[in-house]
Amino acid sequence: MKLTDINTPADLKQLQPGELQAVADELRSYIVNTLSTHPGHLASSLGTVELTVALHYVFNTPDDKLIWDVGHQAYAHKILTGRREAFSTVRTYGGISGFPKMSESPYDAFGTGHSSTSISAALGMAVASRMQGNTSRKHIAVIGDGSLTGGEAFEALNNVGLSKANILVILNDNGISIDKAVGGLNNYLMRITSSPRYNRLKEQVWQRLDSGEGLRQRSKGVFQRMTKVAKTIALGSTNLFEALGIRYFGPVDGHDIVHLTEILSRLKDMNGPVLLHVVTRKGRGLKQAEQNPIVYHAPGLFDAETGERTLITHHSSLTHPLKYQEVFGRTIIELAEKNPAIVGITPAMATGCSLNLMMEQMPDRVFDVGISEQHAVTFAAGLAAQGMVPFCNIYSSFAQRAYDQIIHDVALQQLPVVLCLDRAGLVGDDGPTHHGVFDLAALRPIPNLTICAPMDDHELRNMMYTAQLPNHGPVVIRYPRGSSVYSDWQSPMQELTIGEGRCVREGSDVAFLSLGHPGNDTVAAAEELQKQGLSAAVYDMRFLKPLDTRLLDEVASKGFRRIITIEDGTKLGGFGEAVESYFTEHHPEQAAHITVLAIPDEFVTHGSVPQLKADCHIDKDSLIRSALL
Amino acid sequence: MKLTDINTPADLKQLQPGELQAVADELRSYIVNTLSTHPGHLASSLGTVELTVALHYVFNTPDDKLIWDVGHQAYAHKILTGRREAFSTVRTYGGISGFPKMSESPYDAFGTGHSSTSISAALGMAVASRMQGNTSRKHIAVIGDGSLTGGEAFEALNNVGLSKANILVILNDNGISIDKAVGGLNNYLMRITSSPRYNRLKEQVWQRLDSGEGLRQRSKGVFQRMTKVAKTIALGSTNLFEALGIRYFGPVDGHDIVHLTEILSRLKDMNGPVLLHVVTRKGRGLKQAEQNPIVYHAPGLFDAETGERTLITHHSSLTHPLKYQEVFGRTIIELAEKNPAIVGITPAMATGCSLNLMMEQMPDRVFDVGISEQHAVTFAAGLAAQGMVPFCNIYSSFAQRAYDQIIHDVALQQLPVVLCLDRAGLVGDDGPTHHGVFDLAALRPIPNLTICAPMDDHELRNMMYTAQLPNHGPVVIRYPRGSSVYSDWQSPMQELTIGEGRCVREGSDVAFLSLGHPGNDTVAAAEELQKQGLSAAVYDMRFLKPLDTRLLDEVASKGFRRIITIEDGTKLGGFGEAVESYFTEHHPEQAAHITVLAIPDEFVTHGSVPQLKADCHIDKDSLIRSALL
Repeated sequence: MKLTDINTPADLKQLQPGELQAVADELRSYIVNTLSTHPGHLASSLGTVELTVALHYVFNTPDDKLIWDVGHQAYAHKILTGRREAFSTVRTYGGISGFPKMSESPYDAFGTGHSSTSISAALGMAVASRMQGNTSRKHIAVIGDGSLTGGEAFEALNNVGLSKANILVILNDNGISIDKAVGGLNNYLMRITSSPRYNRLKEQVWQRLDSGEGLRQRSKGVFQRMTKVAKTIALGSTNLFEALGIRYFGPVDGHDIVHLTEILSRLKDMNGPVLLHVVTRKGRGLKQAEQNPIVYHAPGLFDAETGERTLITHHSSLTHPLKYQEVFGRTIIELAEKNPAIVGITPAMATGCSLNLMMEQMPDRVFDVGISEQHAVTFAAGLAAQGMVPFCNIYSSFAQRAYDQIIHDVALQQLPVVLCLDRAGLVGDDGPTHHGVFDLAALRPIPNLTICAPMDDHELRNMMYTAQLPNHGPVVIRYPRGSSVYSDWQSPMQELTIGEGRCVREGSDVAFLSLGHPGNDTVAAAEELQKQGLSAAVYDMRFLKPLDTRLLDEVASKGFRRIITIEDGTKLGGFGEAVESYFTEHHPEQAAHITVLAIPDEFVTHGSVPQLKADCHIDKDSLIRSALL
Repeated sequence: MKLTDINTPADLKQLQPGELQAVADELRSYIVNTLSTHPGHLASSLGTVELTVALHYVFNTPDDKLIWDVGHQAYAHKILTGRREAFSTVRTYGGISGFPKMSESPYDAFGTGHSSTSISAALGMAVASRMQGNTSRKHIAVIGDGSLTGGEAFEALNNVGLSKANILVILNDNGISIDKAVGGLNNYLMRITSSPRYNRLKEQVWQRLDSGEGLRQRSKGVFQRMTKVAKTIALGSTNLFEALGIRYFGPVDGHDIVHLTEILSRLKDMNGPVLLHVVTRKGRGLKQAEQNPIVYHAPGLFDAETGERTLITHHSSLTHPLKYQEVFGRTIIELAEKNPAIVGITPAMATGCSLNLMMEQMPDRVFDVGISEQHAVTFAAGLAAQGMVPFCNIYSSFAQRAYDQIIHDVALQQLPVVLCLDRAGLVGDDGPTHHGVFDLAALRPIPNLTICAPMDDHELRNMMYTAQLPNHGPVVIRYPRGSSVYSDWQSPMQELTIGEGRCVREGSDVAFLSLGHPGNDTVAAAEELQKQGLSAAVYDMRFLKPLDTRLLDEVASKGFRRIITIEDGTKLGGFGEAVESYFTEHHPEQAAHITVLAIPDEFVTHGSVPQLKADCHIDKDSLIRSALL
């Protein structure tokens, strides 16, 4: 059977176990070939091809519920469940999502994107099935060792252990969480997988079960007793998962597809919570991806034959602007060289936020705390309480996880944590789970926070410089994914006055008020409007909080025909509404002139950033249209 | 030495270990006597008296950093660190805080209030000390077994294990997290503490160390080897904490003060992360509190001699309105009797939110998931994805922990979770960590959410009834701590139209627009204004989202001299600003008439709710003043 003959898992079930590896191989090639020209998350999905085939072969999806934690490893799953043809549209506007999505397919039992949610969701479904009298349905959460360090996964395990729910947690252990996994848990898993004594015993158990003896005595009772003996001898009476009341099996080779189907078949009939520890190799089957899974997490375009990446960013180019993240990554080193109190913190995104640069140069001053945004922020607060100046860098949408800690540990105590929110605004292909559009509205109500957004790389540097000076409380700096503005990013840094915006361009007819990177669109729009005879002023407000009310007074005094605010965050509760509120209370006669351009009150789909900006009416053309109204 | 002679821990250090229990006894009496007339958190603090004395006796606070997780168990700590006289002002306006607070004392190394933050903060401080070249300073986090189930604590443990930081985690194991602790972790701790084999071996080790042999060979090397042997024999080569790379000691009796000082003295000189498992009894020393630690968590007034509570709420009184929480707790039972899809979820607050009532009647339909707000919400989403109707009840300020899950798992997927936020608005004595003032502004930007707040018990019932009907997406119902309005709470329930407010009182001069319980103050204010000849209309908007724009249009059309909004949430991003924004965009000529009464942009201290409302200008008098302006 060819991959093209498999339209649903039912087709897969026609095969003998010995025929599955061929399907897996074809799947892997299909993923590599497609992604080489349609960029997406590569390495994670290559690592789970055999596991995916085995799961759909053994379990009765979609009635059995299969939940992929994070979900970027679910490409093989999508291809096997009716989306083979659509796969080349993955992450493109109007195409299929890069993550599981309930509305896309009944096989996507639960939408994911952020990590560490799968066990909680699977437990909810398992409890629902039991309450509805369905005792045969299985509920499977596939979670990576990186995602397992997220606190929510532990909260879920703590609850799974006591439940009688039919839940199978597959621990997909590849030692990677985008960046290399860190922490005590990861060390523990490595000790298990590398314990010769335990694994020798375990192999004997599996072998005996696979032999005639095993086949004859394939009752789960015997199986359970034997594995229990093996574990007790080698790991002691409890291992970490069994301490929490979850039966532990493994580790097993996640690329031995026949063995996987056998084990899954056996575990399928066990009642109650079970964890299977599967060892996989991220990037499996593509040499470059295996060797460099961090780069090949989402490699962009590459040659399907050789695996070589065809578009490599020229980091040191003087002719192209750096990405904002790179400006952050280089500037923090500059600042840290002069200020010994500065440290960097990242929850598992060292490469993504460019703290890897500082890690190389100052390994003792950067802390990759694993996927643990809550801990990252309180840890930063603890450092700040003792005189350090922590730059805690979190993607905007992931920082939602640390909302309480930002309020309770940082802002309330006025601790000088510098919270850098990367990937703020629309992120593009990753879609609604990853757009960083809630940060402005969510953080604005928090007292004591300074919240700013740079319009360009020079401003980012100035904001970073200002934030690390003494006597500032907590500062939030949010900036987008992608390119900054100038090619001479390394400008001399200067202190900004907290809460002071600037007039970037004088004008008399209309005023654009922007926050952060969208200011560049206002300048471009103003230039086009100039050609049409309309004079537009541009104000870069810089700070959402404190809002520069002096500058707003100035704007109000100038009698603009129209005052247009623009931001790449939600309209509700955001920058534009802050301006509206100020005008209502202080310049009500001017309030009628305000137009707010911001993300409307709906989740924004995936697609290119220009496309999404146009959809949300926060692009240059929308500015021009609003000005001409 | 008398308690009155101890003004700082230095005074305590003058004593011999054998004299410490007398201090502990006096401390306990002092706490009981004071709290009998000045209500506060009783049972937790009684359980940690010996531990507190021993910690301050052995460690060099405040240079050594001592962090109390949650912090309501830190009363003895406050009394021993210069706040004995001030203790009778605890939790009162202008008095000392009920929680550790950095600005209150150098002995309060880190402010707490919400659970599970202490290890992260201690690790931050320990890393700071190391980077600053201070290798002798100790960093101690005291965390209950309940708090340990919060995901952030696990995230921290995962990082502690790999650090070389001087950090001592004291696990205060009392089997209680306000309500009885639940989950696999708690079961595990019980197995350890009740293992006769392990504890016999451990005792032999301690005894040998306490004997002459122990005194002679008190080097940590010997001690470590011996305890390691004991643990390996009894618990296997790893226990849960050691699996994460943290040396585990215990369990020890948390009320044997001499033994505690000895053990702490030995652990003090160990480098690297260590966990000491201390078993205590919540409410220790007061019979009623020991027997009923949930009620005596914060018992209100009681008789110091007999322990009897002097003010017991008359739950079934027909003459007093029930608390909102009780109306919730009784109404969900009524609804669940008719709708089999309804289940209740609480993260460790069953009694506080009154889900304990449903637990008694329908034990299989209520899930106390322990302190784990993130899991609670995603678990609810999983249940909802399979056709259940989960009512997930979380205190407003604790729900900040689940902000990402509300966005990512519930709202994005439009799952019909009913999120009930109890303790919304100002909570009074517990102060800034516990005021539920951010929920409105934080949740308003989230698409797909319906957000409502009942003005009274009847409205709460109608909202609960409406939320559980089919074809509604996620609904948030937020209501305050304390009394509802009517004594005949059990009104017939009726469906509300989503997004429809109501005119409660007609008027012509000014209009009050309220959301939720503050509507009662608007009615009272309108009645007083009537006497002064001013006619005030009252609009109960009911829904923050969707906002009733039809009703706002009506308000705008009536030509009120003043339009006054009131809410018990932050001004920034809240209900009032939503109204301002709507008027700016649709009725700009009326915008000048709006006055927004809401919580100003600062953290609100502790004190009585009427006092705090007056401070924030959101009380009846403020309404009247604003109307007369």
